[in-house]
Amino acid sequence: MLRDQIIGAQRATGSRVCVGLDPHSGAPGEVRAKLQRVIKETAAHACAYKPNSAFFEALGAGGMDLLAEAIAWVHDAGRLAILDAKRGDIASTAEAYARAAFDVLSADAITVVPYMGEDAIRPFLMHGGAVFVVALPSNPAAARIVEHGTPPLFLRVGELAAELATEFPGQVGLVVGATRPEEAAILHEAAPGLPWLVPGLGAQGGDLVAFERATHHDVVLYNVSRGIFDAPSPGEAAREWKQRIGGGGK
Amino acid sequence: MLRDQIIGAQRATGSRVCVGLDPHSGAPGEVRAKLQRVIKETAAHACAYKPNSAFFEALGAGGMDLLAEAIAWVHDAGRLAILDAKRGDIASTAEAYARAAFDVLSADAITVVPYMGEDAIRPFLMHGGAVFVVALPSNPAAARIVEHGTPPLFLRVGELAAELATEFPGQVGLVVGATRPEEAAILHEAAPGLPWLVPGLGAQGGDLVAFERATHHDVVLYNVSRGIFDAPSPGEAAREWKQRIGGGGK
Repeated sequence: MLRDQIIGAQRATGSRVCVGLDPHSGAPGEVRAKLQRVIKETAAHACAYKPNSAFFEALGAGGMDLLAEAIAWVHDAGRLAILDAKRGDIASTAEAYARAAFDVLSADAITVVPYMGEDAIRPFLMHGGAVFVVALPSNPAAARIVEHGTPPLFLRVGELAAELATEFPGQVGLVVGATRPEEAAILHEAAPGLPWLVPGLGAQGGDLVAFERATHHDVVLYNVSRGIFDAPSPGEAAREWKQRIGGGGK
Repeated sequence: MLRDQIIGAQRATGSRVCVGLDPHSGAPGEVRAKLQRVIKETAAHACAYKPNSAFFEALGAGGMDLLAEAIAWVHDAGRLAILDAKRGDIASTAEAYARAAFDVLSADAITVVPYMGEDAIRPFLMHGGAVFVVALPSNPAAARIVEHGTPPLFLRVGELAAELATEFPGQVGLVVGATRPEEAAILHEAAPGLPWLVPGLGAQGGDLVAFERATHHDVVLYNVSRGIFDAPSPGEAAREWKQRIGGGGK
């Protein structure tokens, strides 16, 4: 299950780095070669990969096949593949997204958006898959939505995720932005024990030290996309991020 | 622009029916034939179609090509194609989803989820496309999220959509569930003038008369998915729904 897989992968690699695969430009052939190269060069320093569905969909014909191929390469390297798709629909639609993510693409987990409530999350869990529920996005403009109300909405989302994690142990994690250490600390108290996928380091300016000090959470995947994928040497960049982030593994 | 396109399509067809294309079972070849048949038989009674991305993604290889093909058939029939994808991510990711929806698939509009705030909506508008922002979902379990706070979150989302509609006139609509007439009426006051895409009639039990009486909104697309797509005669079912819903066109 998700939590054990993450802990196992972190122990095996000594790394908490998740490499975001965001192929935002290039012809399909170039993108394919680049993905293969990035995965190969970074596998020693990463415990997971996060291909972003949007960039594959934007490639048009063959994009989804390439996404499946990239996930297979991640698995060949012995690493976790988290499909970053931010899906957020209900009932038979969510079930179809689950089939696409887990049966067609063979992802280990998918990111989901909770605006429509538990109906948008449960079908993925019923399918036997793992989810990271977007609780606290890293972008400042999200505050208007996720901090709405008392208590703020993101805590309600954390509670919902924690309830689902009780029903589906080990299958539920949260997406928590590195740019919001104080809110993340509150969320961690409200929904303890869930693994986190943390975007927002690097280009978005999240402060790793402040985040770690505030949250004291050990089952965390820190995602880095552009800082590794677009680096002149992705392998060297991944190694540096691994050192900077540290192995966790408590 | 979206609003004018909807009004024009409703005048041309005398219909406010949007046919949901949810190919939830079948081999790709069967699905293709079914889609072609449904669009052909229903075009005289529908003003728009809403292909649901999930079911095409779940088909695996060739699914996205079939989605592009279905949208082309909708356009060949002279109707609007709304991509129901509930995308909800930010920045360069949302921009890539916009390229996938508008450049690769040639959709006229896409449904988007506002959990991450305006950053999840603006890139689609900057791209020149139209969006339906999910404000008030039709499923009861969404209440825990969308009615959170005072005023309830869905009003904040309505205000956000109205602001974006001022900046991008004619490009912004809302998804409003037929199952929530009272809340829909409040939303209409808070964000007047935006076209609505209304799911929740038929299988989900929304009451058309109660909804119309509460909202008095004339630029509305009523979506029917299973009730038409899975009917023994989709054309006959679409004709019946067209009559039941009425032409609007005030």
